[in-house]
Amino acid sequence: MTDTRFDVLCIGNAIVDVIANADDAFLEFQGLDKGSMRLIDEAEAVRLYGLMGPGREVSGGSAGNTAAGLAALGVKTGFIGQVADDQLGKIYKHDIESQGIEFLVPARSDVGATARCLILVTPDAQRTMNTFLGAAQLLETSGIDMDAVKGAAITYLEGYLWDPAAPRAAMEAAIEAAHAAGRRIAFTLSDSFCVSRHKGDFLRLIDEKKIDILFANQAEIEEMAGIANFDEAVAHFAGRVPTLVVTRSEHGAVAVRGDERASVPAEPIEQLVDTTGAGDLFAAGFLAGEAKGLGLEASLKLGAIAAAEVIQHYGARPEKDLKALAGDLIA
Amino acid sequence: MTDTRFDVLCIGNAIVDVIANADDAFLEFQGLDKGSMRLIDEAEAVRLYGLMGPGREVSGGSAGNTAAGLAALGVKTGFIGQVADDQLGKIYKHDIESQGIEFLVPARSDVGATARCLILVTPDAQRTMNTFLGAAQLLETSGIDMDAVKGAAITYLEGYLWDPAAPRAAMEAAIEAAHAAGRRIAFTLSDSFCVSRHKGDFLRLIDEKKIDILFANQAEIEEMAGIANFDEAVAHFAGRVPTLVVTRSEHGAVAVRGDERASVPAEPIEQLVDTTGAGDLFAAGFLAGEAKGLGLEASLKLGAIAAAEVIQHYGARPEKDLKALAGDLIA
Repeated sequence: MTDTRFDVLCIGNAIVDVIANADDAFLEFQGLDKGSMRLIDEAEAVRLYGLMGPGREVSGGSAGNTAAGLAALGVKTGFIGQVADDQLGKIYKHDIESQGIEFLVPARSDVGATARCLILVTPDAQRTMNTFLGAAQLLETSGIDMDAVKGAAITYLEGYLWDPAAPRAAMEAAIEAAHAAGRRIAFTLSDSFCVSRHKGDFLRLIDEKKIDILFANQAEIEEMAGIANFDEAVAHFAGRVPTLVVTRSEHGAVAVRGDERASVPAEPIEQLVDTTGAGDLFAAGFLAGEAKGLGLEASLKLGAIAAAEVIQHYGARPEKDLKALAGDLIA
Repeated sequence: MTDTRFDVLCIGNAIVDVIANADDAFLEFQGLDKGSMRLIDEAEAVRLYGLMGPGREVSGGSAGNTAAGLAALGVKTGFIGQVADDQLGKIYKHDIESQGIEFLVPARSDVGATARCLILVTPDAQRTMNTFLGAAQLLETSGIDMDAVKGAAITYLEGYLWDPAAPRAAMEAAIEAAHAAGRRIAFTLSDSFCVSRHKGDFLRLIDEKKIDILFANQAEIEEMAGIANFDEAVAHFAGRVPTLVVTRSEHGAVAVRGDERASVPAEPIEQLVDTTGAGDLFAAGFLAGEAKGLGLEASLKLGAIAAAEVIQHYGARPEKDLKALAGDLIA
């Protein structure tokens, strides 16, 4: 095994979020499924943006948000995601690097525009995401720094990477490289619609033992299991992955590892503003616990703390000092 | 007089704000004057950005923020400011138009990049601004829609426009056109350093009766008067402009119009987050009062309400429903 260069290497779609408030009537009129993510092309991105209110732009992307949370918790982190050589790409790279995260993919000028996600936040703080993948969908196997993968204790992948063809192939190669180097793969199912699009592939990854730590929320694990019952869906997968972590929004989260099982309640919050990034930051907290050698329950607790911070403001990256919020857990 | 197409037409530097948290030590090490605005070139913008933490991008620019506040209060508003034909320029235009404000200047591809302001927010919620003017400094007289100026009951100008040469000349032309059409000019002194750079010009504008409504804060009016005493500085200018409005942060604001004088306390707030845009939104509230024919005190009160909203979150444009906050004042 090579030296450990990263505690966690995150690979994902590099996306700038464009966040605007919207009401339920707007979602309904546009035929949008509240709380989910849909993929859109550039023409639809222009059309929908033209109808949205004033935006706030912040770097996002599921695995990018997780990387930001990990760095904020003092974990040695790398990030891989394709950006274009444009203003949004420069912003994305800056926001990764300014947190002390290594940004491992050069910007390209032959991939169109940097990806953006048009996020509509409704008064109930739910987010409905419309993603134009742009440059992100052109992350090639050749764009993956395999030495970085081999040097990372954990490589974390988002299920969203299975939507575009090039990153899908690149991820399979990254998994091979990581496992050949004796490293672990963490994987998030991302979204229940994403699961329905790629269930066959995701089940194969599990059965081929390619996933060591699986993250899901209730809707995703139920969709994967084809069982509309939380406990049964969790039981269905508990023995099939070495570590399973399932979140349940305000009902907390559970983790199962072999015979060990732990659960935590959600952290109390003052005001719910924007749920974007809740799952991403939960994963960051849990993986930070893994990186620091904490037990299941403490890692879940770290996840709950990081998720609670991010849902109390707009944007999917931490704004408060996560280390301070974690207190003794990572002291 | 032509028909009134706009209640208020705002002309200013079209700037995208890049907001990051910073501590006092960072400001000190970089030799920055807390609370002020300085102009920087592109090289310094790149250098400083590289040292800043992760950012939030939101449309800004003093007069642009005022336009956003006016539109949020139901006032018929237009905006003039030069953007480039780039991603940030498209974001800027979207954020203006999506509020129902007419954006009156075509993007240009021969003006470099759209302006950005690197804003460092310290834990005391003060903002320190570093502005790269880019495309904004190339607003030419030919870029001003003089029919729009003639059709606006009030044309509002920011003092910052006096920094670059082209807009300075364009503003003098706009003032002539407005006054020839029997319209009023409102003007903000913008920043005490801006006053010290352009005091001669600003005094001339006042003495030539080119300003009908003058906005200033305490530091600016004292700098203009050369008197380090609030009441004396206000008295110094009270008779020299038809309407004088001076803000004093947490100490409220005063307005003087001929023999009439009014004052209001600051609105109570729950938490101070980022003072960026406080003056801009105060001006929006006051001008909305003027547009709706309210008296001095009610207009000041509207200004205080709009300012209080904007300092309780990051970014210089309103996020909550200003009309609802204004309640009976504009019912």
